[in-house]
Amino acid sequence: MNAICELFGIRYPIISGGMVWCSGWRLASAVSNAGGMGLLGAGSMHPETLREHIVKMREATSAPFGVNVPLMYPQIDELMHLIVDEGVKIVFTSAGSPKKWTSWLHDHGVKVAHVVSSSKFALKAEEAGVDAIVAEGFEAGGHNGREETTTMCLIPAVRSVTKLPLMAAGGIATGEAIYAAQALGADGVQIGSRFALSAESSAHPDFKNLCLQLDEGDTKLLLKQLSPTRLVRNKFRADVEAAEATGADVEALRELLGRGRAKKGMFEGNLDEGELEIGQVVSLFKGTQIVTVDEIFADLIEGYRAAASRMSGNSI
Amino acid sequence: MNAICELFGIRYPIISGGMVWCSGWRLASAVSNAGGMGLLGAGSMHPETLREHIVKMREATSAPFGVNVPLMYPQIDELMHLIVDEGVKIVFTSAGSPKKWTSWLHDHGVKVAHVVSSSKFALKAEEAGVDAIVAEGFEAGGHNGREETTTMCLIPAVRSVTKLPLMAAGGIATGEAIYAAQALGADGVQIGSRFALSAESSAHPDFKNLCLQLDEGDTKLLLKQLSPTRLVRNKFRADVEAAEATGADVEALRELLGRGRAKKGMFEGNLDEGELEIGQVVSLFKGTQIVTVDEIFADLIEGYRAAASRMSGNSI
Repeated sequence: MNAICELFGIRYPIISGGMVWCSGWRLASAVSNAGGMGLLGAGSMHPETLREHIVKMREATSAPFGVNVPLMYPQIDELMHLIVDEGVKIVFTSAGSPKKWTSWLHDHGVKVAHVVSSSKFALKAEEAGVDAIVAEGFEAGGHNGREETTTMCLIPAVRSVTKLPLMAAGGIATGEAIYAAQALGADGVQIGSRFALSAESSAHPDFKNLCLQLDEGDTKLLLKQLSPTRLVRNKFRADVEAAEATGADVEALRELLGRGRAKKGMFEGNLDEGELEIGQVVSLFKGTQIVTVDEIFADLIEGYRAAASRMSGNSI
Repeated sequence: MNAICELFGIRYPIISGGMVWCSGWRLASAVSNAGGMGLLGAGSMHPETLREHIVKMREATSAPFGVNVPLMYPQIDELMHLIVDEGVKIVFTSAGSPKKWTSWLHDHGVKVAHVVSSSKFALKAEEAGVDAIVAEGFEAGGHNGREETTTMCLIPAVRSVTKLPLMAAGGIATGEAIYAAQALGADGVQIGSRFALSAESSAHPDFKNLCLQLDEGDTKLLLKQLSPTRLVRNKFRADVEAAEATGADVEALRELLGRGRAKKGMFEGNLDEGELEIGQVVSLFKGTQIVTVDEIFADLIEGYRAAASRMSGNSI
């Protein structure tokens, strides 16, 4: 049996990322109901908002689901206790060290997966006792590793240091890519961008429609002095690029970024002044329409099976 | 039959990149003799040097081989005529528009493949009449596309716009990755880094040994204002990073780069002051020794078959 399906008790080894401003109960429950596993994105929620989403999630699905927790979340103690109190059984941690929380979560019956950008961090996550690893490459949207290692290089690197169940992330939005990720050593995948643009995503429709018109090269990793972030080409990004080209320091960039940019862009639909985050892979869907999670799953499964069938005739 | 094998008349759809300071007749003939196809790297050769390499190549192998020509080569007319005069039957062009030379090469019985970093450039190459396309992702060593599109995203993007025989490049150094690249839509692969570090590569042994100690994150795409180039961490690169961080302009960077940096680093083995180019994937081989092309081929084929066998049990 597939190691990811076995670990989480799901049918398909396909996880939807817990993305800020996208991954509420509507998206996550649709993914869980489709046979994958949906994650709620706590990163853009106040603790009480997350509680509401967990409650609605339970009403919308009886299938397994998880919560993504960025470990630099300001009220992390409150958030973790709330997650356990609400009976959540799966947590994906990211953006920080899994050392502090993993065994505490285990003590409360919660399985833990941790997101890494290098094999070094994968080893540290294994030492911290996590149950599974997400290896996310440079092509992924939003916040990203400093090593800039791409999914094609990262998956075999992480696979070579750990036997833990492994999910590939970054650049994966089709069934063919799921199949390729498994060939590179992953057991399953975490898909972000494609679900961020689904009908059930809580992102603003204008943001989704903009992303469905992007070309290759329209996203770029910037803000490397703060936290490397893949940004969509817009006015805000042009301001960032102009500042960086003239040698802006950390303070100047922090001031330019300000507060609430991601909410402004992705949730409120301010496409000029907002911070717009999406992965490189989005350009594969240029000119397509917003579709439902069920339609995405049907396409992923068809694409995977087509790749498997095509590759079964290949040899070397 | 595999489209790349058929086009070039070779056994394995594995091409060794025509890499500056690495790809002389020793490396290229070893690859051709192993059943792949070796390319001579004209980019670091004077025309008469290339002629000598072609002559030695013919003595060393009767198998098909090609020459890589960067289209911004200063004496491009002289070089192209020499290639045709010497009876070379396969040319890979890169770093420029294939519009001017493709039909002329065809008129002289030469097959043409062109290296691209985007589906837009792939379409232009097809319009120019090329016989095959190499799609090279962000993780590749040396000079690189401005779009920063990774191999995982680039291969399906290029495959979606053209039916031409397609080779994937960037991040591919194992049989598993060849298999994954085919699952994403490529017919074959062009491998650079791994062959650059082989015993037969003409690169300096000190450069090879340094590269075989690199970690993830030790190469980085810099010099984006000139021509984006993936550089190994060393003193020269630190100077580039310091200059770029303080807003250095094109002129200042050009002066810092100077002339002959790549030769100094990769051919002469000046690991501090030289420009050292290698792909991200090199970190998979950290701690290994320099091996021969035949050993690399044996490993690639074993890895491919292992992936095919493992994946044949997978479904979704």
